[in-house]
Amino acid sequence: MAELRRNPLNGQWAIVHVEDSWGPEKYEREDHAIRAKTTCQFCPGKEFYTPPEVEALRLCGSAANSPGWEVRIVSNKFPALRIEGTLDLRHDGMYTLSNGIGAHEVFIETPVHERNLADLDDEEIFYVIDKYQSRLNDLTKDRRFKYILIFKNYGESAGTTVEHPHSQIIALPMIPQYVMQELEAIKAYYDRCQRCVSCDMIAQEYHDGIRIIADNPQFLAFCPFASGYPFECCIIPREHSCRFATMNDGEKRALGNILRTTMIRINRCLADPSYNFYIHVAPVNDSSYEHFHWHIAIIPKLMRTIGLERGTGFFSVPTDPSHAARCLREIKVATASTASSA
Amino acid sequence: MAELRRNPLNGQWAIVHVEDSWGPEKYEREDHAIRAKTTCQFCPGKEFYTPPEVEALRLCGSAANSPGWEVRIVSNKFPALRIEGTLDLRHDGMYTLSNGIGAHEVFIETPVHERNLADLDDEEIFYVIDKYQSRLNDLTKDRRFKYILIFKNYGESAGTTVEHPHSQIIALPMIPQYVMQELEAIKAYYDRCQRCVSCDMIAQEYHDGIRIIADNPQFLAFCPFASGYPFECCIIPREHSCRFATMNDGEKRALGNILRTTMIRINRCLADPSYNFYIHVAPVNDSSYEHFHWHIAIIPKLMRTIGLERGTGFFSVPTDPSHAARCLREIKVATASTASSA
Repeated sequence: MAELRRNPLNGQWAIVHVEDSWGPEKYEREDHAIRAKTTCQFCPGKEFYTPPEVEALRLCGSAANSPGWEVRIVSNKFPALRIEGTLDLRHDGMYTLSNGIGAHEVFIETPVHERNLADLDDEEIFYVIDKYQSRLNDLTKDRRFKYILIFKNYGESAGTTVEHPHSQIIALPMIPQYVMQELEAIKAYYDRCQRCVSCDMIAQEYHDGIRIIADNPQFLAFCPFASGYPFECCIIPREHSCRFATMNDGEKRALGNILRTTMIRINRCLADPSYNFYIHVAPVNDSSYEHFHWHIAIIPKLMRTIGLERGTGFFSVPTDPSHAARCLREIKVATASTASSA
Repeated sequence: MAELRRNPLNGQWAIVHVEDSWGPEKYEREDHAIRAKTTCQFCPGKEFYTPPEVEALRLCGSAANSPGWEVRIVSNKFPALRIEGTLDLRHDGMYTLSNGIGAHEVFIETPVHERNLADLDDEEIFYVIDKYQSRLNDLTKDRRFKYILIFKNYGESAGTTVEHPHSQIIALPMIPQYVMQELEAIKAYYDRCQRCVSCDMIAQEYHDGIRIIADNPQFLAFCPFASGYPFECCIIPREHSCRFATMNDGEKRALGNILRTTMIRINRCLADPSYNFYIHVAPVNDSSYEHFHWHIAIIPKLMRTIGLERGTGFFSVPTDPSHAARCLREIKVATASTASSA
């Protein structure tokens, strides 16, 4: 029989198949053969095809918008939202609307077309995380923005249209609905218990043990009790922190290592699946969200969404999270890496 | 420039591309060629392959679980939830869970494998809606259930695995998260204005006119102002009603007609797209939701979800809803149908 499980972070329910739980082999495989390398506009030497770079890491001191970068950030060529203008929030009868103010940038994570997150070494993934933080901090200075999301779509079925390794940042002038719901549930828990729900969750995950994938002194990777998707992974700082923005270099290196090794586990366990990942941070330019605990959600795209989920937010998960965590935990990964081992 | 629009029913925001709005021809086409007819377990003569029927419409007086039916309802062969047992809601440390109590049934909408909703005549679609109502009323008698959803997945990319025309009903022992959020937003509006937000919306849609697809004396079909998906359609009773369960035969015929003709419009305008539809009714076994206004959401599956939507509930919609409504409105449809015209 299945179990119904409630996500304490947002009140979402999932039907979790704790009996006859599916192993990795039950899911469809997806082919990610490299196709578009010769025409790729994110490869070095093609810098003039993208909008001018917003920021880049250039160890060799090369000129902007030329080769020689390690990580390069450009505005989205087809942005959903534009940065120019004043936010004009207004009504049209009973409806609320505004002009499309926002920012939408792309992180080109590596100059190497075929190198994905799981292939980067610790130094390279540190560069990426450092740039995430840099762009987040820079965009936060714009007081029009209330929420900033860093996310990555890998693979066609996760919604990517460009093959070259990249992630995205989007800055929004309002707090998205799911985020607001999570903030409200977290606040309700805090008001009731005077404790952070995520801190309590971390304590229980260490107590139960069965859903843990890996940890290091700063971070924990685990499969959430009420995962909405099979093999969903969460990476969370073990100490309470609402801000990605204030991590020091040591923390960024620790995060890079656990993110990289978790991606290797997912890649090997599930045969290089498509995935989305999201860095959930507190809303920006508002200090009233100190009880929020930032985290990364990694969601392999292993099956089509069913109508039930799309229509109601009620999920059905064929793999027990403790089963998923065991499969991921048992993948052997060298925790240290160097550029030459890549 | 895009517009940011807020859905007054649930607080969801969408980036709506009011300039350079995409017409139907910009979306990818999907092939729904009939493949599995010979092995179909929902076709007449194969009744013994499904679980025993829960209910059926048999105009010719044929025996249960034999051919001769017009609409047939069976339990899902692989149910996500089971009807047997007592709901055992409990905690495991800080987590909340229960056993997987629920009901999950399938409506086989027609004996004809190749005949979809858009192909049915008015009498046939009336039979389907009548059976939706009958099963909804029957499952409501079970006091363990708090929410009942009737939905349909058509086409592979909308999540269907069976080709033969069918829809589903699922009864849940708790209210799903998105539904709860909608109920709260609707209640907040009611508490503030002492009016139903959907009734106000209908008045504004008639005033604006540009997003209306079609109507009849009982129902309105329109493309919502803050649609989350391109060519999203809403069918709603023009008079306030929280219950699908109490519709009389005249109302069911009027609903059948506007649902059938809307499906024809979608089918012709968008070249037979995959879609999901949901009948959103008030929670059952609870009289405190009288301000809820029931409606049907039809969501053509025209593009992959992007990471932003999945991670935050912030949508991006390339087609202006008034553009979508105009395209759908301009499709010529005979409003009356007879079995022979099918």
